[in-house]
Amino acid sequence: MKRLYLVGGTALTMDPQMTLVQDSVVEVADGKIVSVSPRPGFKAPAGDETLNCAGSLVMPGLINGHTHTGMTLLRGVADDLPLMQWLMNRVFPLEQKWGKPDFVYLGTQLAALEMIRSGTTTFNDMYYFEADAARAAHESGLRAICGQTVIEMSGVDNPTHDTIAAFERFFDELKDYPRIIPAVAPHSVYGVSEGLMKEVIAFAKRKGVSIHVHMAEVMDEVEECKRRFGMTPVEKALALGAFEVPVVAAHATCVTESDMAIMASHRVGVITNPESNLKLGGRICPIPEFRERGVPVGVGTDSTASNNNLDLLTEAGTMAKLQCFRKGPGSLDVKSVVRMLTIEGAKVLGIDDRVGSLEVGKRADIIAIDINRPHCVPLYDPYSHLVYSSSGHDVRHTIVDGRVLMQDRVVTTLNESDILYRSREFAKRIEPKGLHPTL
Amino acid sequence: MKRLYLVGGTALTMDPQMTLVQDSVVEVADGKIVSVSPRPGFKAPAGDETLNCAGSLVMPGLINGHTHTGMTLLRGVADDLPLMQWLMNRVFPLEQKWGKPDFVYLGTQLAALEMIRSGTTTFNDMYYFEADAARAAHESGLRAICGQTVIEMSGVDNPTHDTIAAFERFFDELKDYPRIIPAVAPHSVYGVSEGLMKEVIAFAKRKGVSIHVHMAEVMDEVEECKRRFGMTPVEKALALGAFEVPVVAAHATCVTESDMAIMASHRVGVITNPESNLKLGGRICPIPEFRERGVPVGVGTDSTASNNNLDLLTEAGTMAKLQCFRKGPGSLDVKSVVRMLTIEGAKVLGIDDRVGSLEVGKRADIIAIDINRPHCVPLYDPYSHLVYSSSGHDVRHTIVDGRVLMQDRVVTTLNESDILYRSREFAKRIEPKGLHPTL
Repeated sequence: MKRLYLVGGTALTMDPQMTLVQDSVVEVADGKIVSVSPRPGFKAPAGDETLNCAGSLVMPGLINGHTHTGMTLLRGVADDLPLMQWLMNRVFPLEQKWGKPDFVYLGTQLAALEMIRSGTTTFNDMYYFEADAARAAHESGLRAICGQTVIEMSGVDNPTHDTIAAFERFFDELKDYPRIIPAVAPHSVYGVSEGLMKEVIAFAKRKGVSIHVHMAEVMDEVEECKRRFGMTPVEKALALGAFEVPVVAAHATCVTESDMAIMASHRVGVITNPESNLKLGGRICPIPEFRERGVPVGVGTDSTASNNNLDLLTEAGTMAKLQCFRKGPGSLDVKSVVRMLTIEGAKVLGIDDRVGSLEVGKRADIIAIDINRPHCVPLYDPYSHLVYSSSGHDVRHTIVDGRVLMQDRVVTTLNESDILYRSREFAKRIEPKGLHPTL
Repeated sequence: MKRLYLVGGTALTMDPQMTLVQDSVVEVADGKIVSVSPRPGFKAPAGDETLNCAGSLVMPGLINGHTHTGMTLLRGVADDLPLMQWLMNRVFPLEQKWGKPDFVYLGTQLAALEMIRSGTTTFNDMYYFEADAARAAHESGLRAICGQTVIEMSGVDNPTHDTIAAFERFFDELKDYPRIIPAVAPHSVYGVSEGLMKEVIAFAKRKGVSIHVHMAEVMDEVEECKRRFGMTPVEKALALGAFEVPVVAAHATCVTESDMAIMASHRVGVITNPESNLKLGGRICPIPEFRERGVPVGVGTDSTASNNNLDLLTEAGTMAKLQCFRKGPGSLDVKSVVRMLTIEGAKVLGIDDRVGSLEVGKRADIIAIDINRPHCVPLYDPYSHLVYSSSGHDVRHTIVDGRVLMQDRVVTTLNESDILYRSREFAKRIEPKGLHPTL
């Protein structure tokens, strides 16, 4: 069987000991990691595939814990608005008009391109027509958890009148995609009725899958929940029985001590989306407090309509600096940040047995980051550079399940110029008065 | 005389009308802008130089209003520390040991490489041995204002016992560098004695130059000034007579209403450094409040020891999002942010008669930013993309004074691999226990 060797560079394994291997060779066979070891001067056997990683950091692929790839064609369509206005006046009307399978499929292709280029190897998605997102994800070679959204206030014609039957069909459609895991994604406790929420939870329990949900994103939401239910969003989720299954809670910026205690005593992980939270006028997630209580925290970008890119490395830099501001320098150190981007993010999503570190037996989801660039020189601490100096543009190779999705900045699984062309053409229909520059 | 034509793309002129020119041609002669106009299908006369800008945004070069390029070899050497500890326990001891002309010259070369690559065409510098920084800046082709630092607490052997004579020699040394403007840069009102500060102000007045000074960066500094002088840093600067000359005030995060009123009634501009302020545990600059009062605000990166890169586009994204967080979405709109990066930054530095916009007669400091990349597609509003989607890695061409410093990502004025090699070798001496990976 043909093997793949990532030769040279410094491997940041992100294993429990945070082992760092200089002059490393990562050996991959049958989609799995076979070995990670120092082998200066290594030459691969003839016939095997090699990737030159000299001058690079070799590390587990990044995990985007919360995004809506299907809405990528709305990139930058609505800036400078607070969350509820952004949602009600811009995003929901646009989604109502354009949110169809072709929009979702193309949006996810565009997002996949950007994610492969910026070092994301797994993404946790939540959107309408998620089977179309899953198909695009599958074709791109990425790993994904695809959560079919349920929401009762957006107006998108997404059949929720028979939600559970639709979920069954959705789970069925994803069966042939080996790297795509289905999930259910009720929008929020304020956006889905109690009865439907209980049905969704029962379905997740029966299928043994997790629930991906927005939770405590802004204070307006908390106030609304208190008014309607007499409870915080976290308390309401508890009352509904949501925490009887594993929950991925996106945002969690506006939480009380008691909310955090509830989350810590159940299988709940948090995905923080710092740039989107800032941009929509929200708060800063109490990341150190969650982690001290044993709640794992991963990192997400949210969608391109509130970010406006999918670059996890710059997201991590913003996140780390925000905690310096909020709680003081040192409250979230650079090694912790890189763990959150990899193994801890995998834990939140329940896939840390398969990905998130370079360890023998794990699936080969690996990226190589070029550090031979002016903004990365000199280098005293590789974790510091990943968090504070690098960006997704420095990613050189992206490998998922042992398959090379990008080599030396060339994406091999998608037709980049065709996707960009079709995205621009689609955008002209969405916003005919936009700039749409000629190329 | 040979002309240079930037052909194609969309020109964001940043003129007072914010004129936007599709299918633009920017014509340059003798280092100046001769015309900016729509000319689809344009072919340059034979013998003239052309730069292909199709699929790009063509705009004035970015202005980094506050940095210390001489310390670039300390990139990432000290994370996760609050300002005063960072300064006293890490930066000052390292500078005391290594802060010599060779360190400053090489550091500025490395910074120049990174700035050219990320679209900065002018930088406002403050450091020791600034004549060596000026020499590196001159050789790189960049435009710079080089401020010789005066400080009486760092321990660097930088002759301040005869400051004014040293300033005279410094101004003399810079005479042969046409794009380098000398300035004086007393560190801060708490870091320089009253007597010396007054001498420095008198010198600036006599020479007709501006003063570049740290001001109201963190609350510790404000408290110290109140204890020592019974005044805020701004009040102390006023009492010393500093505002009798134009002042570039770096940071200004911890200011009172009365401080802002003082600044608004003098020739004071602010340079905000949002990433450094976050990272060192500071506050968020009240940018909209300054601008409402007529105080122009530009953007700086501060040094790579507290940022840790010199990318002004990602800096601007962080800045804009921080104002959404602090004051609400819309309080600092995307057009204003791009103005701050260009013409408003030039105004703070007193060079808006020469640079900061694409207008006929101005010096030709121009960049082209590639928007034919997945993370910039689709495009509804170019200002939004510059602030929220792009980064310095998207810069394709960099032109200063009509000279092409980077074409299609290749820097033409500096030997990149040699500078990276020498920087890594120097870093091994600074921190022998660092990683220093093999390439």
